[in-house]
Amino acid sequence: MSSLIRFGVSLDKSLLEAFDALIRSKGYSNRSEALRDLIREELVRREWMEGKVVAGTITFVYDHHTRELTGKITSLQHDAGDIVISTQHVHLDHHNCLEVIVVKGAPKEVEKLASRIKATRGVKHCLLSMTTTGKHLT
Amino acid sequence: MSSLIRFGVSLDKSLLEAFDALIRSKGYSNRSEALRDLIREELVRREWMEGKVVAGTITFVYDHHTRELTGKITSLQHDAGDIVISTQHVHLDHHNCLEVIVVKGAPKEVEKLASRIKATRGVKHCLLSMTTTGKHLT
Amino acid sequence: MSSLIRFGVSLDKSLLEAFDALIRSKGYSNRSEALRDLIREELVRREWMEGKVVAGTITFVYDHHTRELTGKITSLQHDAGDIVISTQHVHLDHHNCLEVIVVKGAPKEVEKLASRIKATRGVKHCLLSMTTTGKHLT
Amino acid sequence: MSSLIRFGVSLDKSLLEAFDALIRSKGYSNRSEALRDLIREELVRREWMEGKVVAGTITFVYDHHTRELTGKITSLQHDAGDIVISTQHVHLDHHNCLEVIVVKGAPKEVEKLASRIKATRGVKHCLLSMTTTGKHLT
Repeated sequence: MSSLIRFGVSLDKSLLEAFDALIRSKGYSNRSEALRDLIREELVRREWMEGKVVAGTITFVYDHHTRELTGKITSLQHDAGDIVISTQHVHLDHHNCLEVIVVKGAPKEVEKLASRIKATRGVKHCLLSMTTTGKHLT
Repeated sequence: MSSLIRFGVSLDKSLLEAFDALIRSKGYSNRSEALRDLIREELVRREWMEGKVVAGTITFVYDHHTRELTGKITSLQHDAGDIVISTQHVHLDHHNCLEVIVVKGAPKEVEKLASRIKATRGVKHCLLSMTTTGKHLT
Repeated sequence: MSSLIRFGVSLDKSLLEAFDALIRSKGYSNRSEALRDLIREELVRREWMEGKVVAGTITFVYDHHTRELTGKITSLQHDAGDIVISTQHVHLDHHNCLEVIVVKGAPKEVEKLASRIKATRGVKHCLLSMTTTGKHLT
Repeated sequence: MSSLIRFGVSLDKSLLEAFDALIRSKGYSNRSEALRDLIREELVRREWMEGKVVAGTITFVYDHHTRELTGKITSLQHDAGDIVISTQHVHLDHHNCLEVIVVKGAPKEVEKLASRIKATRGVKHCLLSMTTTGKHLT
């Protein structure tokens, strides 16, 4: 289905040595994989800017003792319609919960949901991880 | 257990109006909650720099048809010891999976695991969300 | 012309103590100034998203021995029309120059110029600092 | 003095096509230059983490009518010792000035100066651009 293409890259010797040292320290076993990662990161950034269908995770930490908080968060997810795929819940300690929502949809919709959760009283921290459906990314 | 303190902030009228408009558009119902969020974000950034115990999520997308990939990822998680709390797996389509690992531990350890997963062949995109255990964050 | 408004913010005691310690370490002499900075950073981010007139600096490092490089960079600036206000040039060593261009205009135009300079052969590194004209920011 | 090395990179056809479209839109004339830029950005990030000598610019916008502000900023620069190379000043309008300081030195020292300027009353916005002396970057 997919076909591998090989092309040449020219680089200064000292730049290549510095790059090799860097990627070794990061755990890469070869240059091609490291370069593919750099390329894919650029492409994912572009996907989020151009409004295609993206995937992501919304991670947030909250005190579940806050009055009406869990109900509000559930409502927000339902209002967001079909962009929510699944959630994962971790009890960090007696007070604190960490929840991750996996989402897929238009960037604007995903960002709006993350923003709404973040603005909810009792949510201490909320982050959106912008990743990809992988569909156009081999 | 915790006690609320109220203090005064002085702001230029036009700056306050712009801020009010901004936070309304983000879904905040009052200024205090918006300011608390800005403050907590600064504190979480500091937690990650200073090497305390942090929480986070590692989100990655991969093609599960890649040979030996799932085995490698499982090994990496086991090697990381007790920083992995739980994982969540979503089938994006026939080829692509999105996985989220919830982690808790020293920033360096968490960053190392994320880096190892990212460098694995077949992993298309990998992101680390740097959040908090919430313990020192009311 | 501008009038100061004072309003109350309520915060948990332990959150306030952590914030006070943080801003002291950053050199702030009072909370209001630290909070104003957090607010203004949010507003500047919004200015860049919404396409108003912004100010910024494009910083780049290059080897001035690269053939035709200085001519190309000058051309790019002239093509960018009236968004370029002034430039500053520093000789880092025998080979390397650092140049800063101060720009003012629509975000898209500014980003395009930064992108063009970065893509020029011989430019080793190029960054865009997104700041403000200060006009709507008291 | 420097010697060019050529090596092969293997990439999926569809990934390569997406990359070619992306870099064309950014103004690159060939793949090698685009890949060199991605590599150099990674290396500069590493330089800032590892405490080598780096170069950078501190960009800030302020109202020059603020009492004693210009004096304070000058003092901060003198206290920072020999990391300040040069400055550039632009009058944005009757009230607002944009100033850029070119710095070279240890990352910690540079970050400290940027933090001090940002915390100064009357400074509306302050950003640090983390670039390189170019010395180890061909």
